[in-house]
Amino acid sequence: MKIGNKILLYSGKKFLTSFEPGKKIHTHLGKITLPDELEFGNILNSSTGKEFLVLRPSISDLMKGVKRKTTITYPKDAGIMLLEAGVRSGSIVGEAGTGSGSFTLLLSMTVGKEGKVYSFEKRKEFIELALENLKVSPWDNYEIIERDVYYEGFVGHKFDSLFIDLPEPWEVVKQGREAIKGGGIWVSLSPNTEQVKKTVLTLQEEGFVRINSFETLRREMVVRSYGTRPKEIMRSHTGYITVAWRGK
Amino acid sequence: MKIGNKILLYSGKKFLTSFEPGKKIHTHLGKITLPDELEFGNILNSSTGKEFLVLRPSISDLMKGVKRKTTITYPKDAGIMLLEAGVRSGSIVGEAGTGSGSFTLLLSMTVGKEGKVYSFEKRKEFIELALENLKVSPWDNYEIIERDVYYEGFVGHKFDSLFIDLPEPWEVVKQGREAIKGGGIWVSLSPNTEQVKKTVLTLQEEGFVRINSFETLRREMVVRSYGTRPKEIMRSHTGYITVAWRGK
Amino acid sequence: MKIGNKILLYSGKKFLTSFEPGKKIHTHLGKITLPDELEFGNILNSSTGKEFLVLRPSISDLMKGVKRKTTITYPKDAGIMLLEAGVRSGSIVGEAGTGSGSFTLLLSMTVGKEGKVYSFEKRKEFIELALENLKVSPWDNYEIIERDVYYEGFVGHKFDSLFIDLPEPWEVVKQGREAIKGGGIWVSLSPNTEQVKKTVLTLQEEGFVRINSFETLRREMVVRSYGTRPKEIMRSHTGYITVAWRGK
Amino acid sequence: MKIGNKILLYSGKKFLTSFEPGKKIHTHLGKITLPDELEFGNILNSSTGKEFLVLRPSISDLMKGVKRKTTITYPKDAGIMLLEAGVRSGSIVGEAGTGSGSFTLLLSMTVGKEGKVYSFEKRKEFIELALENLKVSPWDNYEIIERDVYYEGFVGHKFDSLFIDLPEPWEVVKQGREAIKGGGIWVSLSPNTEQVKKTVLTLQEEGFVRINSFETLRREMVVRSYGTRPKEIMRSHTGYITVAWRGK
Repeated sequence: MKIGNKILLYSGKKFLTSFEPGKKIHTHLGKITLPDELEFGNILNSSTGKEFLVLRPSISDLMKGVKRKTTITYPKDAGIMLLEAGVRSGSIVGEAGTGSGSFTLLLSMTVGKEGKVYSFEKRKEFIELALENLKVSPWDNYEIIERDVYYEGFVGHKFDSLFIDLPEPWEVVKQGREAIKGGGIWVSLSPNTEQVKKTVLTLQEEGFVRINSFETLRREMVVRSYGTRPKEIMRSHTGYITVAWRGK
Repeated sequence: MKIGNKILLYSGKKFLTSFEPGKKIHTHLGKITLPDELEFGNILNSSTGKEFLVLRPSISDLMKGVKRKTTITYPKDAGIMLLEAGVRSGSIVGEAGTGSGSFTLLLSMTVGKEGKVYSFEKRKEFIELALENLKVSPWDNYEIIERDVYYEGFVGHKFDSLFIDLPEPWEVVKQGREAIKGGGIWVSLSPNTEQVKKTVLTLQEEGFVRINSFETLRREMVVRSYGTRPKEIMRSHTGYITVAWRGK
Repeated sequence: MKIGNKILLYSGKKFLTSFEPGKKIHTHLGKITLPDELEFGNILNSSTGKEFLVLRPSISDLMKGVKRKTTITYPKDAGIMLLEAGVRSGSIVGEAGTGSGSFTLLLSMTVGKEGKVYSFEKRKEFIELALENLKVSPWDNYEIIERDVYYEGFVGHKFDSLFIDLPEPWEVVKQGREAIKGGGIWVSLSPNTEQVKKTVLTLQEEGFVRINSFETLRREMVVRSYGTRPKEIMRSHTGYITVAWRGK
Repeated sequence: MKIGNKILLYSGKKFLTSFEPGKKIHTHLGKITLPDELEFGNILNSSTGKEFLVLRPSISDLMKGVKRKTTITYPKDAGIMLLEAGVRSGSIVGEAGTGSGSFTLLLSMTVGKEGKVYSFEKRKEFIELALENLKVSPWDNYEIIERDVYYEGFVGHKFDSLFIDLPEPWEVVKQGREAIKGGGIWVSLSPNTEQVKKTVLTLQEEGFVRINSFETLRREMVVRSYGTRPKEIMRSHTGYITVAWRGK
């Protein structure tokens, strides 16, 4: 395994870290020292004799694992946002704002070597945090731009798809329209119905088409030999996703 | 735009097709003739004078657009499956069975030039159909293998993640275990609770860890100037997703 | 069984009717002639030899069975509305508007001989329809009052609980406050989030307490020997219920 | 107000108690002394000067207010169970088991003076607890019978509707069939899908018709002047309700 690779140490509890020979990880289940060579699937013993499996982190794990100063986009939302926005290996995408960089990381890992991610953020402390978090990406395909897009828009850029995670998405619809390539896709995420409504009505005014808002729910199951049922408590709401296409 | 590129012609109704100069598309809104050069965002006029926008299809559009002889994986499920399985640009992934190739297409578009998709299918007619549908992918990174994995498993292959869309996932847990790299990820999808239970219990027996089953729901919103509310009817169930990690 | 009793004739399909000796019911499964004496659980043969069971209708059946010119309150909502409003045998309750009388019927059947239902409706044709539908109730405990409560309120009445099914519930909060007894309960039902918000904010202004809005969902299961799962399609939205208590 | 009437003292927090002149209620907001005469809507001052409103408890409040040694049926389920079972003022209903008596209380309050509730429970300590909780009902229309219905059934009784809240409902289908009047209604509630399946298949074998299983969800809304949205966390699962009609 290459130095710097993200690994998930698992022993009932999980610890997300990156591989460096000799690195010591302190957990409440004892201290783990990483060996000189490591492969996924290896077993490491902590100082208290506890066995830890070296697992391949999912993208959900990596997103949840960023250092955060903001709420992050939930995987249940992030996955469908990528698909609705047509993001794939090679896409050129925009994002505002960057926040902790969790969704930026997902974009970077998805568009890969041939793609490019431009993320806009006006708060300096978030830019630093996000750049730190983005080190997990194996690709050098992202750029964080310090800018207040409410006032300055996305001038100088053209995106296949644009993701808006700002409190007032309707205030950047005009700017977004300029920056989305013909026939390209807008995706915004907002917790409140009022935000959804203002955004949708503004998208209509600005000539966007195929405008669609929805939310996603993830319901965990409890599976045991003696009984199968949904979990008793669930996260009921994160936000509404709005997708739209730039027309002419 | 390159010849063969997928485009979505939109005029209230949508028509998914691929770009070829001079191609004629017959719709109930008139005949559209594609010009010699085309860009996303262009407007085309049909023979009845109807304007059509040339839109960039989302991955959801492409998945829904495959010719099918089977039910396909819904985008709401497909998106989170990719994230939970850690699929990214560059991943080596397995799939059984191929079916109409809709999810195979998503995998191909996500893992990109550096990645690789091996999809297993025993029914010849589906292999042909899937290969036809996979022409949409810009990458030559997939292989469909004619094989009954219930009996023959995945011998000769090692995957970062493996996707199972077969009626009896529990019957291939052993085979899957062999084929998933250490620390790698299993994802299966099944409509019935009985299938989920058998799969989860078998994964436990075979030493998989972090086993988790869940379903996702997508709830559309109706947004109008005079009222915002969820749509009255929704798709309530597609299937349960089970994710697990191969341990040692 | 007494003449006039509601019965459900069931043979895969169901037919809601009332018992009268010699009555003929024409169905696509043949003609059924009701005998002189009838008990629930009896079997009747149609003219084509089809067997029909005589079942006891649930309140859901009776509510769905009314002749309607409006949408009716769904049982999933109606049941919890009764409980939240504290309606029981003996309650004095108000309702505006009556509509087709389906919820009025439920109220009448629940408050019983010692209770009383006052239902307000301004449209004459609905009053007639509702009175027709209310004949199903075994109790003579309801009164439909022709009045536009937006303008005239509920003057002359005092209710333990008041149910509002009008397009603009916030316009009758003041009037409702006058008519609800001290410590009594308001319940309104509206499809749109904007309606909920206006109603809640007005209830707050008028000194209502314990204000709570929610929606209910009913998810049907498919149970077969070979597989158990939720139904694929469900009614996703009917309306939001708002409950509040009149303070001082 | 009559002595013994249940009241809800409300001051942001709520305290369910019953009216007795001179009674002292100790809360963390001070001590409240009930006056000689009390009406709903009155305001009482605690020893610390805090104002308490005297509110009419909803049936939900009363059900949640019972002293419990078991989980109780949630109002979202209880309401629809009553409607599907056709319970109304005057019904003759059965229940097994009684548990803490919360649902028994609801049945008693709904069937009223002309109705009757027979509830079966084998554990003596629950019978005592339920009888204590049932004092809230204004009606003397219930009877708790000490009996193990798995072994002894409901011999000697005939019900319009029968409610089963036991771990193995399928084990009392035969006994239930004997005790439900012709054309009458079975309702059972179970948390696990395996229980639902066994119950449904046994109901089919025993000739029940119109068998239907479903679950209900209650999703709370957050309504503020600056934003409306579903609450972030919800109770996702309580149990599946199965309704069926006794045929011949």
